[in-house]
Amino acid sequence: MHYNKINKLLEKIFTKYGLSIQHSKICSKALINAELVGAYGHGLSRMKMYCDRIKKRVINPKPKIKIKKISQSISHIDANDSIGFVAADIAIKTLIKNTKKTGIGMVGVKNSGHYGLSSYFVEQAVKKNLMVWCFTNAPAAIAPYGAKKALFGTNPICFGTPSGGKVPFILDTSVSMINRGKIRVAAKLGHKIPLGVALDENGKPTTDPIKALKGVQLPIAGFRGSGLAWMVDILSGVMTGANHGGKVRDPFDDFKGPQNVGHLFMAVKPNIFIGSNYIKRIKENIRIIKKLPKIKGVKEINFPGEGTKKRYKKNMKKNIPIPKSIMEDLRKLNAF
Amino acid sequence: MHYNKINKLLEKIFTKYGLSIQHSKICSKALINAELVGAYGHGLSRMKMYCDRIKKRVINPKPKIKIKKISQSISHIDANDSIGFVAADIAIKTLIKNTKKTGIGMVGVKNSGHYGLSSYFVEQAVKKNLMVWCFTNAPAAIAPYGAKKALFGTNPICFGTPSGGKVPFILDTSVSMINRGKIRVAAKLGHKIPLGVALDENGKPTTDPIKALKGVQLPIAGFRGSGLAWMVDILSGVMTGANHGGKVRDPFDDFKGPQNVGHLFMAVKPNIFIGSNYIKRIKENIRIIKKLPKIKGVKEINFPGEGTKKRYKKNMKKNIPIPKSIMEDLRKLNAF
Repeated sequence: MHYNKINKLLEKIFTKYGLSIQHSKICSKALINAELVGAYGHGLSRMKMYCDRIKKRVINPKPKIKIKKISQSISHIDANDSIGFVAADIAIKTLIKNTKKTGIGMVGVKNSGHYGLSSYFVEQAVKKNLMVWCFTNAPAAIAPYGAKKALFGTNPICFGTPSGGKVPFILDTSVSMINRGKIRVAAKLGHKIPLGVALDENGKPTTDPIKALKGVQLPIAGFRGSGLAWMVDILSGVMTGANHGGKVRDPFDDFKGPQNVGHLFMAVKPNIFIGSNYIKRIKENIRIIKKLPKIKGVKEINFPGEGTKKRYKKNMKKNIPIPKSIMEDLRKLNAF
Repeated sequence: MHYNKINKLLEKIFTKYGLSIQHSKICSKALINAELVGAYGHGLSRMKMYCDRIKKRVINPKPKIKIKKISQSISHIDANDSIGFVAADIAIKTLIKNTKKTGIGMVGVKNSGHYGLSSYFVEQAVKKNLMVWCFTNAPAAIAPYGAKKALFGTNPICFGTPSGGKVPFILDTSVSMINRGKIRVAAKLGHKIPLGVALDENGKPTTDPIKALKGVQLPIAGFRGSGLAWMVDILSGVMTGANHGGKVRDPFDDFKGPQNVGHLFMAVKPNIFIGSNYIKRIKENIRIIKKLPKIKGVKEINFPGEGTKKRYKKNMKKNIPIPKSIMEDLRKLNAF
């Protein structure tokens, strides 16, 4: 289906479920973006979950979002259990305003939910010529180093900066060997997952996505990845007043209450130290690295975000493929 | 030798080589700290290198360090090719001042050199009840993802926060599978390095530290670690005006000029959003994680920085073991 057509369908579904037109547009656009960049685990496969949560009022369709100004640079947002996309959209816009004013900005968010791809929100601020970090916690998926029980979420670290070219530099990396969304899609489609990225509930390596979802995902690089996941839980959960320490609810399985996910957004003007030389220097940096001799089989060294943007452009020209089971979900949601 | 005695010896050597008494004290303390936490690659094994660089004037023993105030929160430091410890010491003190004033602070440093352990400087700000990040670049050691030539340094990411207890939470992780200092110590002592952490100059895995130093270190988690290393190069090098893109000189091998390492320090008051609840919540977070069921053979789950502090306390009570070759270096330096 053409992405414009899907976009209209998603907007219609969200408004049926009680979101305002403006909020429906924000959510649909973010989901379509996930499909276009090929992050299917953050796209249409989540529509049913979002609608189920709205129906059971563990996502608040009409949130009263409060933005508290802490200083010229810093704001604190209580998202009032809104759908994550809406909270993140307000947060990034507040961050841009604060940072434009003082050169450096920070926005903490509590009582939010899953917002999909960090890179989608970070890109908005990078397009305003800012350098941006974004951290969010997520339901328990990764075992802390030394533990045999999952506690940290896949807790992504996202960093973006203007690159001096059309495509921004955006690193968006979970600290898990595999993205939880990818395991869910594999489970939904009956595919296997690679060996060495997850353990089953008995602590044994598995390629079965259903067993992996009940077990534990492995952090990157042992204590290093575990430490980074812990940092993200502190930044987005402990500091903002959101859930932390494994208490963020799994949006698919746990309908007992809102998720209370936390996010932390930070930004700085990248030219703060050296003015317009920043753009010259980052261009030079990227040029040098892209010119390095490549290992066998590698045609081009991509900077973070470059591959994503190529996929996006390619997919824009094609229809979005929708698996049967997901199409069926959408049809039912639309008939609600 | 007792650490107090070594400290006096190092101070004496540094002043002999032309550093002021104050700067000699700063450097000696940082090197002793590295020995006490067991980070031998950042300790006495580097003394000869520092002194050689001062002698050849690629480290400036009498730097005129300029601190430029960009805003209430942000400062830019030109370290004038000082030894890295001195630049980092001034940077962290400036960061503390800025952050105490506005709640959020940033300090960029250019024309600096290797400063040893990020955690040592971060701890100073954490002790003042701040949450701190620190990034620094380093000589080429890691190949970007897809390249077969080293370009990024081991580019550590360091994050610290008050933990509510006596021992601060300090994550100090390079994005390399192995610390370059550890390879150097192994080379000096004739030990092997683990398989899978480095390649020789022909791209083959090696356990020989001398071959590894000529070859390439492997980043953690493929494109994820490579992307994080790239981020650190942008933050500490591109943005501050320091060397970047593989141009930071190797302090051991390249005496053609100063290193021009760059650092970026950032901090925020951790109680900015939720007041004194922050300390309650971080204590709870740590308590929950430490209580998790452990994998076989693990007695305790340590938070980042906890193991380091235990080693530090244990080593404080003992003499610092000095390998023969390093003792010989110190003897010669002291006879200068």
